[in-house]
Amino acid sequence: MKEIYIADLVRLDENKPFDSIYLVLSKQQRTTRTAKPYLSLILGDNSGQIEARVWELFDPRIATDFVKGDVVKVRGSASKFEGVLQLKIDQLKKLAATEFDRSDLLPATTYDIGTLWQQLEETVAGFTDPDLQRLVTTVLADPAIREAFREAPAAKQLHHAFLGGLLEHVVSLLGLAQKVVPHYPMLMQDLVLTGVILHDIGKIHELAWSTGFEYTLEGTLLGHIQIGASMIEKTIDSLPEFPPRLKTLVLHMILSHHGKLEFGSPKLPMIPEALMLNFLDDMDAKMQTLASEFQKAARQGKGPGEFTDRVWALDQRTMLNSRAWLGEEANKQP
Amino acid sequence: MKEIYIADLVRLDENKPFDSIYLVLSKQQRTTRTAKPYLSLILGDNSGQIEARVWELFDPRIATDFVKGDVVKVRGSASKFEGVLQLKIDQLKKLAATEFDRSDLLPATTYDIGTLWQQLEETVAGFTDPDLQRLVTTVLADPAIREAFREAPAAKQLHHAFLGGLLEHVVSLLGLAQKVVPHYPMLMQDLVLTGVILHDIGKIHELAWSTGFEYTLEGTLLGHIQIGASMIEKTIDSLPEFPPRLKTLVLHMILSHHGKLEFGSPKLPMIPEALMLNFLDDMDAKMQTLASEFQKAARQGKGPGEFTDRVWALDQRTMLNSRAWLGEEANKQP
Amino acid sequence: MKEIYIADLVRLDENKPFDSIYLVLSKQQRTTRTAKPYLSLILGDNSGQIEARVWELFDPRIATDFVKGDVVKVRGSASKFEGVLQLKIDQLKKLAATEFDRSDLLPATTYDIGTLWQQLEETVAGFTDPDLQRLVTTVLADPAIREAFREAPAAKQLHHAFLGGLLEHVVSLLGLAQKVVPHYPMLMQDLVLTGVILHDIGKIHELAWSTGFEYTLEGTLLGHIQIGASMIEKTIDSLPEFPPRLKTLVLHMILSHHGKLEFGSPKLPMIPEALMLNFLDDMDAKMQTLASEFQKAARQGKGPGEFTDRVWALDQRTMLNSRAWLGEEANKQP
Amino acid sequence: MKEIYIADLVRLDENKPFDSIYLVLSKQQRTTRTAKPYLSLILGDNSGQIEARVWELFDPRIATDFVKGDVVKVRGSASKFEGVLQLKIDQLKKLAATEFDRSDLLPATTYDIGTLWQQLEETVAGFTDPDLQRLVTTVLADPAIREAFREAPAAKQLHHAFLGGLLEHVVSLLGLAQKVVPHYPMLMQDLVLTGVILHDIGKIHELAWSTGFEYTLEGTLLGHIQIGASMIEKTIDSLPEFPPRLKTLVLHMILSHHGKLEFGSPKLPMIPEALMLNFLDDMDAKMQTLASEFQKAARQGKGPGEFTDRVWALDQRTMLNSRAWLGEEANKQP
Amino acid sequence: MKEIYIADLVRLDENKPFDSIYLVLSKQQRTTRTAKPYLSLILGDNSGQIEARVWELFDPRIATDFVKGDVVKVRGSASKFEGVLQLKIDQLKKLAATEFDRSDLLPATTYDIGTLWQQLEETVAGFTDPDLQRLVTTVLADPAIREAFREAPAAKQLHHAFLGGLLEHVVSLLGLAQKVVPHYPMLMQDLVLTGVILHDIGKIHELAWSTGFEYTLEGTLLGHIQIGASMIEKTIDSLPEFPPRLKTLVLHMILSHHGKLEFGSPKLPMIPEALMLNFLDDMDAKMQTLASEFQKAARQGKGPGEFTDRVWALDQRTMLNSRAWLGEEANKQP
Amino acid sequence: MKEIYIADLVRLDENKPFDSIYLVLSKQQRTTRTAKPYLSLILGDNSGQIEARVWELFDPRIATDFVKGDVVKVRGSASKFEGVLQLKIDQLKKLAATEFDRSDLLPATTYDIGTLWQQLEETVAGFTDPDLQRLVTTVLADPAIREAFREAPAAKQLHHAFLGGLLEHVVSLLGLAQKVVPHYPMLMQDLVLTGVILHDIGKIHELAWSTGFEYTLEGTLLGHIQIGASMIEKTIDSLPEFPPRLKTLVLHMILSHHGKLEFGSPKLPMIPEALMLNFLDDMDAKMQTLASEFQKAARQGKGPGEFTDRVWALDQRTMLNSRAWLGEEANKQP
Repeated sequence: MKEIYIADLVRLDENKPFDSIYLVLSKQQRTTRTAKPYLSLILGDNSGQIEARVWELFDPRIATDFVKGDVVKVRGSASKFEGVLQLKIDQLKKLAATEFDRSDLLPATTYDIGTLWQQLEETVAGFTDPDLQRLVTTVLADPAIREAFREAPAAKQLHHAFLGGLLEHVVSLLGLAQKVVPHYPMLMQDLVLTGVILHDIGKIHELAWSTGFEYTLEGTLLGHIQIGASMIEKTIDSLPEFPPRLKTLVLHMILSHHGKLEFGSPKLPMIPEALMLNFLDDMDAKMQTLASEFQKAARQGKGPGEFTDRVWALDQRTMLNSRAWLGEEANKQP
Repeated sequence: MKEIYIADLVRLDENKPFDSIYLVLSKQQRTTRTAKPYLSLILGDNSGQIEARVWELFDPRIATDFVKGDVVKVRGSASKFEGVLQLKIDQLKKLAATEFDRSDLLPATTYDIGTLWQQLEETVAGFTDPDLQRLVTTVLADPAIREAFREAPAAKQLHHAFLGGLLEHVVSLLGLAQKVVPHYPMLMQDLVLTGVILHDIGKIHELAWSTGFEYTLEGTLLGHIQIGASMIEKTIDSLPEFPPRLKTLVLHMILSHHGKLEFGSPKLPMIPEALMLNFLDDMDAKMQTLASEFQKAARQGKGPGEFTDRVWALDQRTMLNSRAWLGEEANKQP
Repeated sequence: MKEIYIADLVRLDENKPFDSIYLVLSKQQRTTRTAKPYLSLILGDNSGQIEARVWELFDPRIATDFVKGDVVKVRGSASKFEGVLQLKIDQLKKLAATEFDRSDLLPATTYDIGTLWQQLEETVAGFTDPDLQRLVTTVLADPAIREAFREAPAAKQLHHAFLGGLLEHVVSLLGLAQKVVPHYPMLMQDLVLTGVILHDIGKIHELAWSTGFEYTLEGTLLGHIQIGASMIEKTIDSLPEFPPRLKTLVLHMILSHHGKLEFGSPKLPMIPEALMLNFLDDMDAKMQTLASEFQKAARQGKGPGEFTDRVWALDQRTMLNSRAWLGEEANKQP
Repeated sequence: MKEIYIADLVRLDENKPFDSIYLVLSKQQRTTRTAKPYLSLILGDNSGQIEARVWELFDPRIATDFVKGDVVKVRGSASKFEGVLQLKIDQLKKLAATEFDRSDLLPATTYDIGTLWQQLEETVAGFTDPDLQRLVTTVLADPAIREAFREAPAAKQLHHAFLGGLLEHVVSLLGLAQKVVPHYPMLMQDLVLTGVILHDIGKIHELAWSTGFEYTLEGTLLGHIQIGASMIEKTIDSLPEFPPRLKTLVLHMILSHHGKLEFGSPKLPMIPEALMLNFLDDMDAKMQTLASEFQKAARQGKGPGEFTDRVWALDQRTMLNSRAWLGEEANKQP
Repeated sequence: MKEIYIADLVRLDENKPFDSIYLVLSKQQRTTRTAKPYLSLILGDNSGQIEARVWELFDPRIATDFVKGDVVKVRGSASKFEGVLQLKIDQLKKLAATEFDRSDLLPATTYDIGTLWQQLEETVAGFTDPDLQRLVTTVLADPAIREAFREAPAAKQLHHAFLGGLLEHVVSLLGLAQKVVPHYPMLMQDLVLTGVILHDIGKIHELAWSTGFEYTLEGTLLGHIQIGASMIEKTIDSLPEFPPRLKTLVLHMILSHHGKLEFGSPKLPMIPEALMLNFLDDMDAKMQTLASEFQKAARQGKGPGEFTDRVWALDQRTMLNSRAWLGEEANKQP
Repeated sequence: MKEIYIADLVRLDENKPFDSIYLVLSKQQRTTRTAKPYLSLILGDNSGQIEARVWELFDPRIATDFVKGDVVKVRGSASKFEGVLQLKIDQLKKLAATEFDRSDLLPATTYDIGTLWQQLEETVAGFTDPDLQRLVTTVLADPAIREAFREAPAAKQLHHAFLGGLLEHVVSLLGLAQKVVPHYPMLMQDLVLTGVILHDIGKIHELAWSTGFEYTLEGTLLGHIQIGASMIEKTIDSLPEFPPRLKTLVLHMILSHHGKLEFGSPKLPMIPEALMLNFLDDMDAKMQTLASEFQKAARQGKGPGEFTDRVWALDQRTMLNSRAWLGEEANKQP
């Protein structure tokens, strides 16, 4: 197990040497303004990323046989440059696959995957619609899907951009949907829940997460909406006597879940369940974004009355942590 | 009590005389293409509106002393013109205020106002924040506000455009909020609920509902957001030692609840509770719109596979009643 | 064969009786302002549509056993109402399927379908890429696709909204592409041509054309882009050793051919061939629209210096037939 | 009084030591690329801002007991880095409040505040509408408002972002309005002038200007439009028998003065006086912006034929100083 | 001289015969629903337009030899159809050019053309820039331009759509500019005034006003901005030693005066004088629009508290006549 | 002739001295962070641009008498700073006009100008419309136009931003137009070709290309659309009996060729030939952009599966070189 995570470095003494294990996210040869060459690396682990520099390029303690995607053990020290923490690497060697635990090296959900998966399966077990139940059951039983679904992030960056993020997002949405759907009797609950479980399933092929989080080439050219719709259509076609109208509705929910053409959905939601899926997905993504932004602001040392940085996913708004700010006032009162 | 509601006319034999009581929403003298003068009225009751024509202008059985806003008893018959139902009036007299029940004459919520009000008060009774509790309690205890709040529609047209619509919308939102808010621990529940109860309170001055639903002149020039913020600010200023920060947060929620500047909010939601209020308000309004559109489509005689007319509040989309359409398929199966 | 087409009626003497055969596109019972009931029909044939009215509802010469979609033989006469031609029907009977030729009753391409199809097949025969050749050959060899492809319109309205319109549009595009593509050596010609042939193939399920041109319910909820991509993916998956990258490129061209997210493409064109396909499709559609608008203006009796009505597909612009206007000047000169 | 203003530094010999007094606008510890720590300060006075660096952190002549918002006396020298002037600080001590004149330290109007105030009061004295006169008189007589109104900037940045900027902007607008309003007899002059005086009054609470110009938290969450409307409504409510319609019109002018919903006005101008106020405000702001940009271009050493930088408030346009450019041509002529 | 203007008809007894002279703006043969043919005319004079119908097509008292653009003398009577006034024509004959005064037949400015022209010439006489003075003087001295400039409307519809409208608009703008320009010392007054006089001069070729107000074909394809710039460039090129830079500035002002690319200006205003011209033009157009809308509302019988119809040129806003509404309150007070 | 082009430097050994000749595009005095002064130059030749630094400011081998626009001979060496190549200059002297070949110093078309010009003239020789033929012939025969047309770039940056770019773009478009136009019989071919040749002719005055590519001041204030329309109008006016309608059509094509108001065309294309010109111009510009981006990506060392940087002219899209990517797969196969 790792000892020093990137998120810990900020509390480490500047310039004090330490050892740790990181994933190489990028590797580039560069030169300073005064023509001194150095190696610039982006190193990552499950707590964040950091730039590292190697100045002694020909030091035998610095391995040269590693590339982007490798995992390395380094000895170095941290210091701030223009207010940004940076590593200076004194020793570096490439590790074999057996020498580290990959879960240490990419950010991951803080929930237990097994528990999340169980919640997902229990929800499906509770379906009253037999056709939707066998559809979702069949999808989740596919070993390749199952394995990827338990690992995949929900995004390259932004909300749920961590291992297990897709599953965490889906299970959070299931909990939310089970509360909201009964408020509107017009909605067919199992259809909404099916949409919740399947809407982002194309992301298991749109994204790659072995070394950082990237779009695949297929993902860039086709997108997770088309990939997901194709996956589900094939599964449905393999199920005997699946009702054709229900097939159309399920595919429509996947196609329309981004809610707007300009967000990449080729169709707007045109049934109540698709409208609800888009509402829930949007709400959950934004609330999760907000939580992340408040954590980030706290890490930046911002106080209760300070706004977050501008948030891209919220139209460049800045947000205030109302609870913290209000609490501060209460505490000041006698 | 009235015997023949406007919504009943479609099932009445064409040309068969009947008597009923209606509110005069509009009164105009007109001429046919062949120069024949007639009186064109828009009559309404709580089930809808209809055009009515008086051809025998000088018949002594036709009263002339009535104006827009009066209630009249008419004898006439219904028939279709270009597919639209229309009344021909043979007798008409103005009624005194004692001769009718106003609740028959404007569309109203189908819920019991007393019950809704009780749900509202019970919610407030459950607040744990004493400041928000005394704020909301004080507002609801104001006799003028209380009376108007129990009567007001939530809109001139579109969603909840009926007597009691404001209260029905608020209580529906409270139910929804009590389910969704606990899903996000970051949210201060009482602040969200306070926003739910107070966000549209300016509508009691923005709208007038004695004869049809209209904007007041003050409402047109100032808007319910400004009117509501002013009402609540005055109430807060009357409460001793109300925390200043909480005042700012409550006012911010009222100002930002439309969610976008172009929808008339002078500020975007910048705290989690305001963001949530906007989500819930938008979701509930659209789901209620959808329910109305499906009812309207059924009244239009549309079948399960037919889409609604284009819905203005849903970006001119047409919507499909998925449950009905799917049900039809199931019924067809052996 | 029919004797009097709807487009001929404008040259017929007003009020002069004639017989003809039409398709019933709509049938509604209505009432005049003076309460007189009548039957309002929309009748169509391959030259256009017209409103027809039956005033003698109980005349035994007027059949009552027909519905929308039936073909009827009528005797009647034409006259103008508010400048718009209208039929008065005196006799009407429903025809059996053997009593008429369907091609008379819906607008159709003026080209010979067999010739168009041969041009299409010759183009495919000239492919140098064996994978794309076997893909397109396989698609066109499917009897269900082949039959529909030879019949389908390219749109419900707007450009190429007539039987055979899809095929005519594709063949016109092929001719254009074969001229333009060699101008840009960067382009893989067979890939562009494959995109031209397959991009709209989903329309054979998105549209229905047995009685007028309508969207199917599946078409409304899924769209021809998704339907077409799914059809082609299934065909590719059935071909042994089809190159995976080529599959991705072909699907990308179908998905992106509308050129903009807001036009319903879930992906923008991101390869040169997809960019070119979008250019050609857009150009051909607009030039065909323009030709139709000039024909329509001529039918409206507009002179050489008069602009067309506003054209929806050209951003509500009005257009001038420059050749006609310039020719008029030349003719005026001595 | 200060001897060396920031705007003077550009004309000072590089590296020549000097003494001066500045306001500390920001203070941060940083490290160079070669790990050398230093203190980075943003210092300001009424002529501008500049970055300053302290390299000898432990030199006893460098005080450490100062924070953002303090005023310091420094000895240092200026030089350019990447074309941008920068200070190197050799000595630094914190000053007591009695040791400097705050008006030296923040940019301020070049007009005399007393004179501007007198012009404002004379305008109000000339009102013919007694209700508007007592409203404005009452507002300006409030000691807290009066003091803040004489000091407040009109913006955090952009036009009139200096002490007294609000008053200067209002008095400039009054002069403009008194010229333009008589051109349109439809306008009630006193109502326009009242709008001019009161439209931005909420800025005295929206902005803070003790150390630089910042938004207050209340200002960020509520905005000067709402704050100003609330202030004026309270004043009106305190005036006996103020005409209710006039109250609505005055509040409408404040609410609508940004002219567009997307600029944060919850209502569009719907009366002629509000339309005119928005025109005048917009025109004056843009002309003042233009003047500043031409001054800035001159400071940048641009010649008569060179365009300004892109101007954010003018849709990123670049502007040409036409008078200067034309004058250059005239001068060249014999 | 005419006796009965169209604007007078609303006060005439319905169905009472009268004689008058009108311009034929449109002439169409139509049929009623019951197949009765009639002639539908749009007649106009300087006070407005009205639909007129001729029912007795073969009556010898009804001339048949007239076309759109002719002037006719009619005997008829007025009545309302669906609330809209309409004429019934009993006699009609075509007039020779000597039998009427054209100024009676198209709406015209209420100002004296001679006086307006004198104001224009006096302004030019006051120029201090000799180059601009000889430019404008030369333009106004061209007999063809002079005659057209004194007659032309400023628009086909919307603001200043009447004979002399262009001149009235320019003279109003000159008055406004002479007040506003001195407020901004940066502005070269004669350049602004030159822009005011010349900016719309292309409208004398863009519009035709002999029979109603229409765009010319050249106007539709080129626009008054291009036509005007071309006219002024030719004049400048004919003036010896006109300063080249001044030529560029004058042309830039014409090109940019619409203020936005999407309003048809190929360049945004990039000099202060062009910015000011756009401000003044926009302000004057909107204030004149507002005055027209209030007059229209009064003609519609709207009371002081009623809003105008939605105004296209003001983003579909409705406007309130604040002076009238406020006056009503004052009058009500004891 | 030059020996070392800027594009060659990337392949040169770092730090190895070499001699070459460059154009000075910019010259500025700067200081490093540690206060060391240096001279920063932007040097260019026909293969690209590069930053160069002179550290020994007082070395007698460094000339000081040169300015922006001069051509200099330098001795120096190249190295990378932050991954970007940079020159260090050791010796520098200014060259006289006879000591270099300007065509080496600005990027230029790779086609032979004489050949391009001949293709242009042959196309005109093939016109069948005598009026258009003498118009274009007259324009091209003007010595000033002819010389500039053979040299001008088509843009300051983006597509065809090199000497001869305008001519290359026009000749490419002519070839394309001659293929596409016959596909649409509605089009008058000579009118389209005239539009192709003349649409951008204003660029010879809008741009300056003696030292780098810049907008002229006249170009910035008037634009090439207006300048070009004015040039062509003057030529037409000099041709006896040129048909007036044809003049309007030619000018309309120049004015509308950008296709949208927001792209600076004061008129939308309203005739078929103008619509086609806009299509062809847009297509050719984007295909040429794409070719440049793929070349740039190759220079950046990107592999077949890597996307280009975001392309401004393609809505910030990234593009994939499909041919290269597909070829890679083929090569991998056995």
